[in-house]
Amino acid sequence: MFQETSSDAERKILSILKVLSESSKPLGSITIARELKRHGISLSERAVRYYLRITDERGYTQFLGRNGRMLTSKGLEELKLALAPEQVGFILDKLELLAFQTTFDPQKRRGELPINTSLVDQERFKEALLVMKDVFKAGICVSELVAVASEGEKLGSVVIPKGKIGLATVCSVVINGVLLKSGIPIDSKFGGVLEIKNSKPKRFVAIINYDGTSLDPSEQYIRARMTSVRKVVKTGNGKILANFREIPAPSRTMVEEKIAMLKEVGINGVYVLGNTSEAICQIPVRLNRVGMVLLGGLNPVAAAVEAGIMVENIAESGMLDFEKLVSFWEVLNKYTND
Amino acid sequence: MFQETSSDAERKILSILKVLSESSKPLGSITIARELKRHGISLSERAVRYYLRITDERGYTQFLGRNGRMLTSKGLEELKLALAPEQVGFILDKLELLAFQTTFDPQKRRGELPINTSLVDQERFKEALLVMKDVFKAGICVSELVAVASEGEKLGSVVIPKGKIGLATVCSVVINGVLLKSGIPIDSKFGGVLEIKNSKPKRFVAIINYDGTSLDPSEQYIRARMTSVRKVVKTGNGKILANFREIPAPSRTMVEEKIAMLKEVGINGVYVLGNTSEAICQIPVRLNRVGMVLLGGLNPVAAAVEAGIMVENIAESGMLDFEKLVSFWEVLNKYTND
Repeated sequence: MFQETSSDAERKILSILKVLSESSKPLGSITIARELKRHGISLSERAVRYYLRITDERGYTQFLGRNGRMLTSKGLEELKLALAPEQVGFILDKLELLAFQTTFDPQKRRGELPINTSLVDQERFKEALLVMKDVFKAGICVSELVAVASEGEKLGSVVIPKGKIGLATVCSVVINGVLLKSGIPIDSKFGGVLEIKNSKPKRFVAIINYDGTSLDPSEQYIRARMTSVRKVVKTGNGKILANFREIPAPSRTMVEEKIAMLKEVGINGVYVLGNTSEAICQIPVRLNRVGMVLLGGLNPVAAAVEAGIMVENIAESGMLDFEKLVSFWEVLNKYTND
Repeated sequence: MFQETSSDAERKILSILKVLSESSKPLGSITIARELKRHGISLSERAVRYYLRITDERGYTQFLGRNGRMLTSKGLEELKLALAPEQVGFILDKLELLAFQTTFDPQKRRGELPINTSLVDQERFKEALLVMKDVFKAGICVSELVAVASEGEKLGSVVIPKGKIGLATVCSVVINGVLLKSGIPIDSKFGGVLEIKNSKPKRFVAIINYDGTSLDPSEQYIRARMTSVRKVVKTGNGKILANFREIPAPSRTMVEEKIAMLKEVGINGVYVLGNTSEAICQIPVRLNRVGMVLLGGLNPVAAAVEAGIMVENIAESGMLDFEKLVSFWEVLNKYTND
């Protein structure tokens, strides 16, 4: 009845697949060995070649002659599945990693910040933009700054597949990152669905704690069609993606300053900031803590899904340089004037 | 920016809606006051009438003359939304409540056990049965015992809506209940998606902890189309719904006895039983504990959804008397010979 856990060999194979998954070009065994070393894994070039023969046989990688190897879709699938047991509590770990990796400085207007990546069929991208337009206009997003990438290009750690266009939206974890760099610890509690009534936040109607899930809550809510972002834009009533955070009460003034600074460079996302130990949106807050509701960065994309457009979302998909972001309105102009 | 929490009046209104939601017939204010008392809420008949006028105005209830009032679909929606903040960790609480309420005794073959309720359009019910047939045959279920109810009838705490047929499947929490009644504490850890390879359990590829979610994990996985139950039946490879539990190591022998007893009355569901502190399906198990993988009771229904049949699932939907269960094969015969 019992299956043995992944052997050492399987772990090494996975680490090689992981390196390949992060590259948009084929990689040779020398490069793979070097990349593994950067991740703290010592494997000789010869050992890498040995494991690559196994991954070829299993159909996880494809040998492309002198250029090296690429990950196949089967290999990507295997990688996703195999990493799941390590992903319990993974979403929280991922958020904290991205916050740590944030180097974006709102005063200097440079550095890297965390993004979400959404993949849309090329033929429907324009249509998706037209739906998202109203959501960006209503401000139900973290930022109007986005990035667009074509097939083969990379957004964060995601390589855009054939036939797709990738749209990067700013992830609300940017707030965590900027606060963390100022020495303010911020506690990511849960991803939820927030009910809006008369254009005001009312209450959370669904909650998934970050420390108990291997799946991103926002991705799940979008898939399960639990949002009505378009309705909120039109009528002021409906349900949007929102996240809950907590900060130490004495840091509140500093946090307000940072929020103002971020606003100046076009990054919003803080929807409600509570007072000490005050429940917000019906969520109790502990002693000497302040609750904070952040808007989900994927709200515009949720609206596109509501409109029947198929979108694959990878929340918290990695980091992007602030300088690579452009205004959504520029993107809209470009695609609607074509 | 801040909304006040539900006032006392709102809580009373919700408790009245809750009583109405649990009835398949209209209720008068006397009955409602009596039911509230059973739940530990003291409200005079006059007070109930006062609040019912408010719920009528808001469209949550419908006045049906002398027979009393029924909950409207708007009222049901309100009830669901309003209860969400109290539902953080709610799934775990719900599981423990149902385990406590289980009175089913496998030796005496009587008592109540927890069920899931699935709602299928009347026109597609036969088609759904034909898909589920293979899954029941392959044993990817908790039990072949089911119950069927028509519109207006009740399964657990769910009243079957117009145009639908309700199918109750035995919920894996029945194992919790039977063990608990024997004095064995059982810890419900998470609901997951289990990868099956060569007809054997391999590893969990998705995990949501019961104590950190307001949404049932199985309902979510079915909605997000993360299962491939039909593929497992056909090829021995694919993904099914499964849950993870833990028991104290010294109780293992007693647990085995109970499992054998349940098997005799047609209730299975224990898919893997580990050894002391042994990881199963790549999930580590604590010191002096034994891990246990249970099959999801909704696996047959997941297969129907995979086949494109719309099904609304309410996992852990309440209790049903063992005597009301019938064999799936009887139901299949009845509907396919019509």
